[in-house]
Amino acid sequence: MLIGRVVNTNAAWLASKLTFLGYAVRRILVVPDEEGDIVEAFREAVDRADVVVSTGGLGPTPDDITNLAFCKAVGAEPVVNEEALRMVREKYEARGYPLTQERIKMAMMPPGAKPLPNPVGTAPGILYEIGGKVVVILPGVPREMEAIFESHVEPLLRERGPPVYFSERVVVVRGVPEADAAPLIREVMRIDPRVYVKSHPKGFEVDAPLLHIHIYASAGSREEAEALVERAAGRLVELIKLRHGERAAVSTG
Amino acid sequence: MLIGRVVNTNAAWLASKLTFLGYAVRRILVVPDEEGDIVEAFREAVDRADVVVSTGGLGPTPDDITNLAFCKAVGAEPVVNEEALRMVREKYEARGYPLTQERIKMAMMPPGAKPLPNPVGTAPGILYEIGGKVVVILPGVPREMEAIFESHVEPLLRERGPPVYFSERVVVVRGVPEADAAPLIREVMRIDPRVYVKSHPKGFEVDAPLLHIHIYASAGSREEAEALVERAAGRLVELIKLRHGERAAVSTG
Repeated sequence: MLIGRVVNTNAAWLASKLTFLGYAVRRILVVPDEEGDIVEAFREAVDRADVVVSTGGLGPTPDDITNLAFCKAVGAEPVVNEEALRMVREKYEARGYPLTQERIKMAMMPPGAKPLPNPVGTAPGILYEIGGKVVVILPGVPREMEAIFESHVEPLLRERGPPVYFSERVVVVRGVPEADAAPLIREVMRIDPRVYVKSHPKGFEVDAPLLHIHIYASAGSREEAEALVERAAGRLVELIKLRHGERAAVSTG
Repeated sequence: MLIGRVVNTNAAWLASKLTFLGYAVRRILVVPDEEGDIVEAFREAVDRADVVVSTGGLGPTPDDITNLAFCKAVGAEPVVNEEALRMVREKYEARGYPLTQERIKMAMMPPGAKPLPNPVGTAPGILYEIGGKVVVILPGVPREMEAIFESHVEPLLRERGPPVYFSERVVVVRGVPEADAAPLIREVMRIDPRVYVKSHPKGFEVDAPLLHIHIYASAGSREEAEALVERAAGRLVELIKLRHGERAAVSTG
């Protein structure tokens, strides 16, 4: 990222999720894979914020040092977390690979940390609470980061976050492939930062694609959340009819 | 950016440029459009780095406060820079618009700052030197930021930067539209962070598109820079022939 070869899409994804959950994102910081920089970044972040989310540096290669640098930042000696080690071991054993020192490293975290299962990769995430604050450390691969966040971090932050009301609605679309729906979904999400839209493809036939598009909104009151979802659903249906009217069938529920 | 609606492509573009010029990018930081945050971010950055580049917050709206916050960060009273005011006035007068207070604000900077002409927008950039360090403040609109950087910042940083040798080569491609060349160019740039590739469309016909693809490389010696350019040009030609061989004509010079 610091040499400009990768655009930081993780930061945008997380900022969108956190905003939706009612949190105010105050800083995005990118530092090199160097211990001193990572330690300093964690200390600064824990000092400033109630919730800190980091991505990257949890893999088996020598430059993956985020977990160890985090231990240093909080003044803890890294230990092999038995639950994490079991997660890592299972992934490798299933593929017939041995548990090397580099792989054991992925299970190291401060005492008291909670490993977060990684459903699509090998390195577990890390959840650590310190002085009433939450630190979440996730892998850098976007689909791993997203999967861990959605299964294990989002529910926790929702529970601990500010009082926020959620509303949800599903729009069922037949005849429009997911790739063609994507730009319309992005357009609908631009309505408001508290609107989040996600499509779930249900049909596999190229001829008759079936999408369940879930629209979520969050707000300080139930009425406001519902109004946002209404507005977003209305706009989505309008856009689908406008762009794909000849082949699409839309129903909302 | 902090609500996740915009991905920070400016940071990647600038990081790539600065790496190419021989600089080591040490931090990317995003803060809210709030005076306290911007002041703190500038102070931290000037303290840490020899070169600081910021983007965003130079426009006419009330939340555009980067130039004023920067004055506060360096302890200077903002003044209307006459050269900057002339640049701003010319842009608006050409379109028949009056010079309002909001527009005059775009010409305010610390005494001694140098305004950088904006060839594609209204807000000038700002160049400020402090204690042997360089601060560059650019608009957030990518094409304005890029245009000012390439015309006025790159030559300066090249001159002041570490001793770096540059090499350049042009590959002329007929028959491949610019959009189809873009992914190949991205792939070639992945060879090395010191390789930079830019396509210039020269033909306008859909039937016979003509691209001049400039390949630049920087390195600590002339030989190394030339070898990098050679390698990148070879890879580009290989990719074009592989993907578009049936319709492409390639010549290198």
